[in-house]
Amino acid sequence: MTNQAAAQIGVTGLGVMGRNLARNFARHGYPTALHNRTTARTDAIMAEFGHEGTFVPSHTAQEFVASLERPRRLVIMVNAGAATDAVIEEFAPLLEPGDMIIDGGNAHFADTRRREAALRESGLHFVGMGVSGGEEGALNGPSIMPGGSAESYAALGPMLETISAKVDGVPCATHVGPDGAGHFVKMVHNGIEYADMQLIAEAYDLLRYAGGYSPAQIADIFRTWNSGRLDSYLIEITAEVLAHTDAKTGRPFVDVVADAAEQKGTGRWTVQIALDLGTPVSGIAEAVFARSLSGHGDLRAAARDLAGPSREAVADPDSFADKVEQALYASKIVSYAQGWNMIAAGSEEYGWDIDLGQMAVIWRGGCIIRAKFLDRIRSAYESNPQLPTLLADPDFAAEVTAAQNAWRDVVATAVGSGIPVPGFSAALAYYDALRADRLPAALIQGLRDFFGAHTYRRTDADGSYHTLWAEDRSEVSR
Amino acid sequence: MTNQAAAQIGVTGLGVMGRNLARNFARHGYPTALHNRTTARTDAIMAEFGHEGTFVPSHTAQEFVASLERPRRLVIMVNAGAATDAVIEEFAPLLEPGDMIIDGGNAHFADTRRREAALRESGLHFVGMGVSGGEEGALNGPSIMPGGSAESYAALGPMLETISAKVDGVPCATHVGPDGAGHFVKMVHNGIEYADMQLIAEAYDLLRYAGGYSPAQIADIFRTWNSGRLDSYLIEITAEVLAHTDAKTGRPFVDVVADAAEQKGTGRWTVQIALDLGTPVSGIAEAVFARSLSGHGDLRAAARDLAGPSREAVADPDSFADKVEQALYASKIVSYAQGWNMIAAGSEEYGWDIDLGQMAVIWRGGCIIRAKFLDRIRSAYESNPQLPTLLADPDFAAEVTAAQNAWRDVVATAVGSGIPVPGFSAALAYYDALRADRLPAALIQGLRDFFGAHTYRRTDADGSYHTLWAEDRSEVSR
Repeated sequence: MTNQAAAQIGVTGLGVMGRNLARNFARHGYPTALHNRTTARTDAIMAEFGHEGTFVPSHTAQEFVASLERPRRLVIMVNAGAATDAVIEEFAPLLEPGDMIIDGGNAHFADTRRREAALRESGLHFVGMGVSGGEEGALNGPSIMPGGSAESYAALGPMLETISAKVDGVPCATHVGPDGAGHFVKMVHNGIEYADMQLIAEAYDLLRYAGGYSPAQIADIFRTWNSGRLDSYLIEITAEVLAHTDAKTGRPFVDVVADAAEQKGTGRWTVQIALDLGTPVSGIAEAVFARSLSGHGDLRAAARDLAGPSREAVADPDSFADKVEQALYASKIVSYAQGWNMIAAGSEEYGWDIDLGQMAVIWRGGCIIRAKFLDRIRSAYESNPQLPTLLADPDFAAEVTAAQNAWRDVVATAVGSGIPVPGFSAALAYYDALRADRLPAALIQGLRDFFGAHTYRRTDADGSYHTLWAEDRSEVSR
Repeated sequence: MTNQAAAQIGVTGLGVMGRNLARNFARHGYPTALHNRTTARTDAIMAEFGHEGTFVPSHTAQEFVASLERPRRLVIMVNAGAATDAVIEEFAPLLEPGDMIIDGGNAHFADTRRREAALRESGLHFVGMGVSGGEEGALNGPSIMPGGSAESYAALGPMLETISAKVDGVPCATHVGPDGAGHFVKMVHNGIEYADMQLIAEAYDLLRYAGGYSPAQIADIFRTWNSGRLDSYLIEITAEVLAHTDAKTGRPFVDVVADAAEQKGTGRWTVQIALDLGTPVSGIAEAVFARSLSGHGDLRAAARDLAGPSREAVADPDSFADKVEQALYASKIVSYAQGWNMIAAGSEEYGWDIDLGQMAVIWRGGCIIRAKFLDRIRSAYESNPQLPTLLADPDFAAEVTAAQNAWRDVVATAVGSGIPVPGFSAALAYYDALRADRLPAALIQGLRDFFGAHTYRRTDADGSYHTLWAEDRSEVSR
């Protein structure tokens, strides 16, 4: 139980995520050191799961560090923020050059960059590691997104690839890039997850209130969708949730759940960082706003009596359901296009050199947005690593082209029936803006020049220009 | 020219905004001290505008400070960020307790909070002062949004009210609240300005490509709108810009301007801070994203060939134009509702106790979003200072109710003709979500509980619940 330097990896912070990750390592044959501030938890885990593999429990930080073979691999699984800094401060002085501190929490990538730079000074490797898949993924195979030095990945990567989910035998783990790259892509993953869930919620709402279907019927529709191109974990569990009946009331479960969605920070961060990078991620933004709106009970109560059309069922629900599938699929392509552009922009901004296709590879399994669809993204970037947008990939373009009439019908139906579809309509507006020959941004530039002399460019000449609006309206070069 | 302590106020940083603000003070009879790092600029201003009032120019910081009567009122008009900190560091040691440093730049309100707290330690008042109206406003009457201590406003407010714009004899300047309150509301003002311009741009695009009107005809339409409830500076100058013909080509000016809109930081900041505050500001977000999308030439070029419907003119353009006016007005009410909710949320978060109606009063004149409409907002908050949303004000509710069919028609037409209307459709989705009896956020909560055990609340009982999805699907209290 207290073999010195017997463990190949150690986990400190044995909440459910940390515990399950530790069990995953041990089950794959890696002797795994365990440490938790409250030692009772360590002992409880030994009692309950000790038989699953070789664990090396310890009650002090010194003992924990001493139990790790060198270079040490020390995974911290605590809350993002101050708790992470505290654990780093506790352990860093006990480590030696070449050792690795691996943060498996949901840290902001800017914090990860700061920590990596600070620890590098002491010769330590800091690996900001995104882990997706929740408790179940952590135990049975998550999608893993480690950032940090190539050297640390050489020592750590094979273990991560071993414990990660596999799709077609390929691990859902790869070296994302230096310093904050791993936590950055994990953040974007979560942002895409927000958009995916919002689009699914809108599809459900449309089927329910314009399609006239019951939750049980909609569960069947999602089950059918799950056997097609929308095949994914979130579509699968949507069918499960919609099919569920509340035991207490006998009513559909979805009708007894309060309609106020909560959020943790990563969706919000994604939009905030996208704004800094100048990447439009309207699908993710609308999803975050939709959640926060749903939670404003005071606002909603005050607006409850505002007028709107009555929600009448469409004439042909089956054909409508088919159109909703097309709208959902097309909108999903748009959110993924936005998310991938954000990864490309982050990679460019921070010099991470992220392999865009590989992000699709490691999200095919283990994580919440796992989907057949991701293999299509992998193949799009394989065909063209410089692809400026997923929408320009010939296969995706053909699919959106085929879907766009249905997509427009669905948004028009929603708008006409008073059903809010912020995600579907933001995606469609993005699609139409991107392909527009001319955008009214030209007028905006004219207005900005009028009131603030902000200047404009011309379509037919280089340089910046200003019109003397308050004088003779002649044009000057600026 | 070098009278000791003769000036009632001083301005350092004599770019066009600083120079015009100084001239505005002097023209109103306040002896005004002038200072600029490059002294040639001070001399040039004296030569050109010295006759307009009593100026006290100085060539050194010491001279400048000595020329101000006590308590000193020192306005800094330099770039936000490091330049502002540098000027504060230069002057603060030369000042005495009770003196005021007034930052008239576009600082981030969090910086203003930090600076105010630091200077308060030395007994100095720091006033973060939002100024809107551009160069012309600074000279002839801006809208002024000072934050800071009540004591500083007592000493400074009367001068600001004197030089500000007036509407019906009421100054467009008021004490917004402590520390960062002034810069915060200036930021939201700019965010609303982004949304206003985006909605105007969409209205123009619709009239042009679905209405079939020429820019000159659309200028006339905007001119007509400007005599109605949309009466505002931005509608007025839209008519001017659209009526303008490019001298070089003889083509409509709006057609020779490159359609890539630029942005400074405040629109982006507004959305980022709204996300932190949990306030949905989808109208502002879509406006910021629309600008950044317009600037992505690479993306747009790659997507140029994506399929869409042909843009055919509607059958009855006049009636369509009338509907566009209604859609624009309704969408505008939504963005102002979102903006005001954000001010309320900021005021609550930071304990500023902002008078929401007063913000409408001081934006009626001087600033870019000045409009008749703002008097309606003032009166809405006068009737009910606790109004949870502008949409719940009986007058606005009646107007949106009357407009909503037209609004829906316009969005449906846009969607059917492939004209991007991210602002109109986000506003409509917000309206429909706010008034919805049930939102599909309930499904999102069910999904989050399924994959992450995040728990949910019930509509019929207090407390948090979790369904044992992987077991017998019974419900447990959490």
